[in-house]
Amino acid sequence: MIPLLFLSLFSPSIAILRDPAGFHAGPVDLATTKTGYKGYKYQEEFLSGVPIDHFSFTTNQTFTLRYFFNAEHFQCQKPILFYTGNEGKLEGFADNTGFMWDIAPEFEAAVIFAEHRFYGKSQPFGNQSYSSIDNLGFLSSEQALADFAFLIEHMRTKRIKCAQHSSVIVFGGSYGGMLSAWMRVKYPHLVQGAIAASAPVFWFFQSGIEEDIYDRIVTRTFTSSGCELNAVTQGFDAISHLGQTDEGRKFLNELFKLEDKSKLTKADDSNFLRAFIKEVFESMVMVDYPYPTSFLSPLPGWPVKLACSFLKNVSNTDEEAARGLFNVVNLYYNYTGSTTSLCANPDVCAGAFAALGDPLGWPWQTCTEMVMPLCSSGAPNDFFWKDCPYTEKTAIDFCQKTFGSIGFTDGILRPNWATRNYGATSFPTATNIVFSNGFLDPWSVGGWSKENKKEGSLIGVILEQGAHHYDLRGEHPDDTEEVKRIRNMERSYIKQWVKEYEMKWKEEKRKWKEEKGINGNFTAFH
Amino acid sequence: MIPLLFLSLFSPSIAILRDPAGFHAGPVDLATTKTGYKGYKYQEEFLSGVPIDHFSFTTNQTFTLRYFFNAEHFQCQKPILFYTGNEGKLEGFADNTGFMWDIAPEFEAAVIFAEHRFYGKSQPFGNQSYSSIDNLGFLSSEQALADFAFLIEHMRTKRIKCAQHSSVIVFGGSYGGMLSAWMRVKYPHLVQGAIAASAPVFWFFQSGIEEDIYDRIVTRTFTSSGCELNAVTQGFDAISHLGQTDEGRKFLNELFKLEDKSKLTKADDSNFLRAFIKEVFESMVMVDYPYPTSFLSPLPGWPVKLACSFLKNVSNTDEEAARGLFNVVNLYYNYTGSTTSLCANPDVCAGAFAALGDPLGWPWQTCTEMVMPLCSSGAPNDFFWKDCPYTEKTAIDFCQKTFGSIGFTDGILRPNWATRNYGATSFPTATNIVFSNGFLDPWSVGGWSKENKKEGSLIGVILEQGAHHYDLRGEHPDDTEEVKRIRNMERSYIKQWVKEYEMKWKEEKRKWKEEKGINGNFTAFH
Repeated sequence: MIPLLFLSLFSPSIAILRDPAGFHAGPVDLATTKTGYKGYKYQEEFLSGVPIDHFSFTTNQTFTLRYFFNAEHFQCQKPILFYTGNEGKLEGFADNTGFMWDIAPEFEAAVIFAEHRFYGKSQPFGNQSYSSIDNLGFLSSEQALADFAFLIEHMRTKRIKCAQHSSVIVFGGSYGGMLSAWMRVKYPHLVQGAIAASAPVFWFFQSGIEEDIYDRIVTRTFTSSGCELNAVTQGFDAISHLGQTDEGRKFLNELFKLEDKSKLTKADDSNFLRAFIKEVFESMVMVDYPYPTSFLSPLPGWPVKLACSFLKNVSNTDEEAARGLFNVVNLYYNYTGSTTSLCANPDVCAGAFAALGDPLGWPWQTCTEMVMPLCSSGAPNDFFWKDCPYTEKTAIDFCQKTFGSIGFTDGILRPNWATRNYGATSFPTATNIVFSNGFLDPWSVGGWSKENKKEGSLIGVILEQGAHHYDLRGEHPDDTEEVKRIRNMERSYIKQWVKEYEMKWKEEKRKWKEEKGINGNFTAFH
Repeated sequence: MIPLLFLSLFSPSIAILRDPAGFHAGPVDLATTKTGYKGYKYQEEFLSGVPIDHFSFTTNQTFTLRYFFNAEHFQCQKPILFYTGNEGKLEGFADNTGFMWDIAPEFEAAVIFAEHRFYGKSQPFGNQSYSSIDNLGFLSSEQALADFAFLIEHMRTKRIKCAQHSSVIVFGGSYGGMLSAWMRVKYPHLVQGAIAASAPVFWFFQSGIEEDIYDRIVTRTFTSSGCELNAVTQGFDAISHLGQTDEGRKFLNELFKLEDKSKLTKADDSNFLRAFIKEVFESMVMVDYPYPTSFLSPLPGWPVKLACSFLKNVSNTDEEAARGLFNVVNLYYNYTGSTTSLCANPDVCAGAFAALGDPLGWPWQTCTEMVMPLCSSGAPNDFFWKDCPYTEKTAIDFCQKTFGSIGFTDGILRPNWATRNYGATSFPTATNIVFSNGFLDPWSVGGWSKENKKEGSLIGVILEQGAHHYDLRGEHPDDTEEVKRIRNMERSYIKQWVKEYEMKWKEEKRKWKEEKGINGNFTAFH
């Protein structure tokens, strides 16, 4: 069986669950080797004593947070590069954020990847973490940021020798990019700058996001890569038609190599197949990188362009049209040729959840504060069919179904909280953040800016040939000139932030010595 | 019986509980009249549906927050002046923050005073709010700020007509000043500026505050007002001596008009009397205003100077020296001449707690996150006697004693959390805050700056003749020229912040119209 993506388990009407990072299916588990994807080396460490609840005091319970650590290039008081982990186990982030590893030597920096609570090995209540909202309720972005603050303080003052004046630069992609931006917004005394890649920080109701924009961008990226809109919509129509008859369903079952348990057996079943395919399109745009990657799924370089070679023309028959879509699915799930069957029906594939780590984590976050409007308005706006509008009720219905058994009730979902807390359309006082976004990536539309822009030291930059946080990936021979340029720009900003901070604490130290008239141990750092 | 101050109930060794605002004993209860101290008019309103826990999602429970509201001068899209209520019932703040009422007409502004959760009528669990840490644990500054954010959003978008583009300027004194500064630091998308008066934002371990500085400033203010240090220390010594004998205790009991239940009966009892007197000194400096006030206690203008008329010279006898201190106590507690007896022993006066509203609220806050080092190093540094050092254990011992019965355990106290969350020595990205402090006021030393200072749009200003948040008080014929000047300066800054924001949203509206090509309802405001 193929490694099922979290993304592929959405029901058609609940695209709300689309996961901006989709790191879950990272193919390499390094917990034992402690050596990353491209040979990055790190120690797996654990910090105990992290408060379960930073913002209230009903309990003194603490938990243990996992992080990865490498100090081989670190020099006294030089920077700490800190990844604000997102919705998945930590290995995927360490492996796919080569940029941090690449620049560590030149900055003589320590590298830290921090795991997000409730993911990977950072389970506050062990195997009971997801068993009730009494436990799972402590999964929130605010708590995660406070965990990172706790860890940063610990690393600077206790774990790393000679780091009390180190600047801390945070990095993150997707939801992790939101976290790194928010880390700088909310804890500017602890971190000096942020590289927030493909962070849809303004993808909320109060941001005025257009609910159907995601699939419109999916469609834009595919059509600009050579796909013919009508070829795609015809394919989906064909599947509906074929699904009406036994013969048609038999054709589809064989074409898509559906596993027995997920075979189409009645007319409505074509819906789940169509949703399954839709999500392939929605995922592939995120990973439309110029060289082969295994980020969401093993894929060739520029996979969207290759997919579009199957969807250039309108077909003569339903079968032919359906085959066009199958070719895309086959590319996505079977590029390595090792997949012999597919499970497309989320109702029966749910067992695959277990293999993915914490697949209910992101859904929970979308059922509480990360309420990000997503739906399709259908052709000709996009390749798909109308399931808009997206309303609070859309979310609640899903959340009730998914989390009702562990205690979800209306009122747990707070669609305006994230923007009330972080800001809906601007960060009026923030400084030192690069918000990078890829034009190919649908999430880019919810970014800090949709074009290149500079507001003080807030920098918005668009990679015209960029998919989801491409710039965070490690150097590659087939990198675009553009991404090299952007990475160099990011390097320069980091250099500047580090230098400014260094000047500041050295000046403070000078004043402190002057005032005290002694050569004591100047430790104040924020 | 005199109205016992919260401050007067500290045991000598736990000055940690000193309350920066001490609003508890406000003499005027306006719940029924709905007209403030100087005739300020407001409606008492209640906002239901405020989440108990903004930062986690274990519960959908909500509570009702009280606020006072006046829109008589409000004009469309003009500012909202918003008081971030602190540790006491709301009336005291509305009555003693005349500055907001005074400037509302010229700004055509709405005025809002928001109550802090767990104080006054804003009890999230009714009369069970203080009964267990399961409930009381939700009393924290972070939750309070989020309540204010919730209320601001509600007022702007629902309660006040034509306020969706109103700027919001927050005001606060003492702990309320900390909250108003932190509100701008953490929610700059919701509030455009802050007047943070006498806010000891850097009075924490990680700020490097000198633990004995409070009483050193108390002593500085008294001696610079004419007190002779030796006269005061002699008085305290005399009380110790007199406390050794039956005759001496009889003299003290009569001199201080001690109630039966709080009479000195054994040698050690002189300790509680000395502590009681010490707290009079510590309180009086906070309210050393130039004209008669009833803020902590009814007092004449410049009470410290008057107190020092009793402490100019060393005495010839213990009795005479003790009488010098009594005169100060009598001034503080009996200026109106209506007090016939005093209760000085905190162990037996505890019953008076009930009359003060929520006297355990601030102690709870000091037992969780507001861990502000306070102790005396004794003469000649200060008037008192050594009870330093102040350590985490000092706090825990007190908290265990006070809150052990409702569930306090080690680990609830998190002395580094406030600074980790808000910053220990700087607010690196904050803008538009005036931090005012009074040189007479001990809390000034923990302020954003100890001298006049300007860093971008962060302004530190010292009132040489100022006590605790004097500038927030309403205009008075006997105001100093200095406070008039400072208030005018604050007015100018507010004007500037309001104007900048107005220009910004008008520009955004213009761009929005241009982009949309329509004259629709532009509602985005942050």
